[in-house]
Amino acid sequence: MITINENFLKLQAGYLFPEIGRRIRSFQAQNPNAKIISLGIGDVTQPLAPAVVEAMHGAVDQMARQGSFRGYGPEQGYDFLIEAIIENDFNSRGVELDKSEIFVSDGAKCDTGNIQEIFGLGNIVAVTDPVYPVYVDTNVMAGRTGTVNRNGQYEKIVYMPCTAENSFLPDLPTRPVDIIYLCFPNNPTGAVVGKEVLGRWVDFARENKAIIFFDAAYEAFITDTEIPHSIYEVDGAKEVAIEFRSFSKTAGFTGVRCAFTVIPKQLRAYTKEGSAVAVNPVWRRRHTTKFNGASYISQAGAAAVYTPQGKKQCRKIIDKYMANAALICESLTKLGYKVYGGVNAPYIWMKTPDGVSSWDFFDQLLTKAHVVGTPGVGFGPSGEGYFRLTAFGRPADVKEAMKRFAAI
Amino acid sequence: MITINENFLKLQAGYLFPEIGRRIRSFQAQNPNAKIISLGIGDVTQPLAPAVVEAMHGAVDQMARQGSFRGYGPEQGYDFLIEAIIENDFNSRGVELDKSEIFVSDGAKCDTGNIQEIFGLGNIVAVTDPVYPVYVDTNVMAGRTGTVNRNGQYEKIVYMPCTAENSFLPDLPTRPVDIIYLCFPNNPTGAVVGKEVLGRWVDFARENKAIIFFDAAYEAFITDTEIPHSIYEVDGAKEVAIEFRSFSKTAGFTGVRCAFTVIPKQLRAYTKEGSAVAVNPVWRRRHTTKFNGASYISQAGAAAVYTPQGKKQCRKIIDKYMANAALICESLTKLGYKVYGGVNAPYIWMKTPDGVSSWDFFDQLLTKAHVVGTPGVGFGPSGEGYFRLTAFGRPADVKEAMKRFAAI
Repeated sequence: MITINENFLKLQAGYLFPEIGRRIRSFQAQNPNAKIISLGIGDVTQPLAPAVVEAMHGAVDQMARQGSFRGYGPEQGYDFLIEAIIENDFNSRGVELDKSEIFVSDGAKCDTGNIQEIFGLGNIVAVTDPVYPVYVDTNVMAGRTGTVNRNGQYEKIVYMPCTAENSFLPDLPTRPVDIIYLCFPNNPTGAVVGKEVLGRWVDFARENKAIIFFDAAYEAFITDTEIPHSIYEVDGAKEVAIEFRSFSKTAGFTGVRCAFTVIPKQLRAYTKEGSAVAVNPVWRRRHTTKFNGASYISQAGAAAVYTPQGKKQCRKIIDKYMANAALICESLTKLGYKVYGGVNAPYIWMKTPDGVSSWDFFDQLLTKAHVVGTPGVGFGPSGEGYFRLTAFGRPADVKEAMKRFAAI
Repeated sequence: MITINENFLKLQAGYLFPEIGRRIRSFQAQNPNAKIISLGIGDVTQPLAPAVVEAMHGAVDQMARQGSFRGYGPEQGYDFLIEAIIENDFNSRGVELDKSEIFVSDGAKCDTGNIQEIFGLGNIVAVTDPVYPVYVDTNVMAGRTGTVNRNGQYEKIVYMPCTAENSFLPDLPTRPVDIIYLCFPNNPTGAVVGKEVLGRWVDFARENKAIIFFDAAYEAFITDTEIPHSIYEVDGAKEVAIEFRSFSKTAGFTGVRCAFTVIPKQLRAYTKEGSAVAVNPVWRRRHTTKFNGASYISQAGAAAVYTPQGKKQCRKIIDKYMANAALICESLTKLGYKVYGGVNAPYIWMKTPDGVSSWDFFDQLLTKAHVVGTPGVGFGPSGEGYFRLTAFGRPADVKEAMKRFAAI
């Protein structure tokens, strides 16, 4: 008799975005003329940079001709892309990496979801609260958790609250944990972390023989020169950290699909008996067995992000989003709201006024201003009383949304 | 202390293709003027169909403009592609499917590798011998096997020998098994299965509450009208089978990346207590949590495969490969070799002459004819004494290789 993986049955139904959709549809049905603006979605809206478009056209043409046609590429990515990544994303910040330490993929969601697979099921997982749900759900599927409680939190997972009280920077766990998910610039809070605080996490991981999964998908939005873009800017991090990067938000690749993961050769995990095992070759085995490389066309497009033209054009797109973020922060602050993030990150995390709950504020905003955001509590109980807005809308929509906020 | 998933340590080193590479390099170093022809690799060589190229250029242009830009798509694939798949691949053969039963992905390697994840670790897995190694390795990683023996076979897995004696069609297991991997047209043997024999497998699965993972990645190479392209052409299969398809060999997408998996709504697995659980929503949860959709550009290209022009052009490319296959079969038969496959499949599985071992024949062919193939034993112990050639070479290379075969 074929049995199902019963860990999947522990997952609570995907609640947040379906519920948002349900409330929007219900409101729209009763108010067919309302023009709803969404500042809730984490997807980009600006078209691809011309340099990327040109490179992808070129790659498609190569695929059309004998002689330049490309079949299977290396599962871990083409050298032309890996070399551009190392030079531009790491060497430029004083970090040396070997080509074998980069694994190109089709998305950071896949990578952050799959990475746990190469580690033991007994490891204790620590995540922030609020948190990007993929980190948690993929550990539930694997069987590293117990059942869910009424707050949507799972037994065995260590949740680290992030609120205004700790500036959205989690405290170090008071008990040993083995796997620590950190995301900076943070989704959903927009918080960033300085080198010193990040250094404390690296030290903690070294002392506890833990590994940090560092999600840096939003590093392109960092404007403050003091903020590290990579965890490897911190001494010793190569021994305890895996870093995830993506072209999704950096270059508008949410529909193109290209990302990469860094696993330094120094990184070690352990057998139950305590023998050290290099993690890089284990992931290589996983990646080459279960993945067949990102699309050549996507990789060619990603490499163009690093050309002088590509850099300039992508910067311009990010500046556009950051102008949205600045406008949102400024407008809401003027209106008396307390806002966080939005400076080195595309997410604005606002406190709901007068202790209103996240969902009540969602309803008020939808019905009074026809603006949609994301209830903070949807990312975890510590998000209650907060609300997420994103900078990824079209500038005209953001302006209009801010006017409507003023009229509530 | 972070522990590694020790199941990964059970994997034997990837031996086959690295060893082939080592022997080629060593020979080439000693014979720098030898022009080696490879009939060993399973990768396509013909450029993409013009209709696919045009569609991908169109998709890139859409991504370049506000208004037509596409960000995240549905994780399970765009309707325009799913509808084309259902109509052309299934309705045309009398199989009805709902859109929710198709999951578009970036490759059948990923899908056949990931699918086991949603099932229990206690399931007994049956595979053919010889076999595509991904089926086995991904179950080793998950922990459904014991250690490996000196033949490269793992404890707990049920291996089903396929040799000339049973026409490369495995016998039904004499003990209950829970997960059965079948691949027809087969890689590496080129064997195909008729409706009646496939029906026996479906009956077996129904009687044993097992699930068949049916890999149909090579169905486009079927020329015989009696051979089923989909397992769902067999009555009752929807209750017990998952089918994997790919554009890799059908349309030369090995570098473009697009494939899909079919999970019928009727398919059930069971909790340990015996309650039936629908498999489709469990895979949907896995697919939407750990995957973010195939590239829009790849999906646009894949949809063009189903246009009248695309069909004609892809057929022409496949005919070219099948002409290679026919030439190989004919030439080798004339030379007195015993060959199998190559009629409804792009793989030719030949018996080595005079009981020579697979690797000895590899060395003879390399050193005497400067032609590379794949030792059958590399796919499993029942492949010993066999040798795999593929039809994916360029026609001129295949012709030249056959001349050299004659001169051995």
